[in-house]
Amino acid sequence: MTERRLAEIYRRYIDCLNTQNWEELGRYVDDTVSYNGQPIGLDAYRQARQDEFRSIPDLYFNIHLLTADEAMVAARLIFDITPQAEFLGLPVNGRRVSFAENVFYTFAGDKITDVWSIVDKAAVEAQLGVT
Amino acid sequence: MTERRLAEIYRRYIDCLNTQNWEELGRYVDDTVSYNGQPIGLDAYRQARQDEFRSIPDLYFNIHLLTADEAMVAARLIFDITPQAEFLGLPVNGRRVSFAENVFYTFAGDKITDVWSIVDKAAVEAQLGVT
Repeated sequence: MTERRLAEIYRRYIDCLNTQNWEELGRYVDDTVSYNGQPIGLDAYRQARQDEFRSIPDLYFNIHLLTADEAMVAARLIFDITPQAEFLGLPVNGRRVSFAENVFYTFAGDKITDVWSIVDKAAVEAQLGVT
Repeated sequence: MTERRLAEIYRRYIDCLNTQNWEELGRYVDDTVSYNGQPIGLDAYRQARQDEFRSIPDLYFNIHLLTADEAMVAARLIFDITPQAEFLGLPVNGRRVSFAENVFYTFAGDKITDVWSIVDKAAVEAQLGVT
């Protein structure tokens, strides 16, 4: 079952993020990875994730829903985190917020080549009382 | 292939929306459907979709990405539409906006029982020049 294989690889990718095992990230993410249609490459992708952990010390990726086929993974991730300053352009400033991210990944072989992510900014706005 | 079957059913569901074939919606959506964790039921679900077509006369659902397993469908939908008034709480007022929705559907048999949707509000904000 190729689809089960990619789901397994994806779970290991999420473990890799949660343990901040940056040396291993290139096992899951392609050198030429694109993010929301922008080619950024592995180094910038790793840097962006590292920056997130720096500005959100309790960052943790929880998989709520996961489905996959032979070339694509889709996941709904749940976050319950405390960004220290601005987050998504919103003044979170150390408050705890809960929200989801729905995200698609296309693969070449075992590696992610494209990420198509949407974060639920409206949910964060609602918790902050801003619109 | 059960997963291919659900993908097929899902494509028919999207056709049903795009043709506003409201009498057929109950073939795809369960009587007890929930939306983002809120039980709303088929009638309110249909009403919400009808209201969207009323406020967005050129509404059309384009499937960009689609993956499925035996009980779940995930889709990235692309919209290029002209909401006539407010949309997502933003003053769109007849401007044309392009954005995506990443959405998961869980099924019982052939019918959608849960929808977990995130619309890319930040993309719409960027196009309107608001944050």
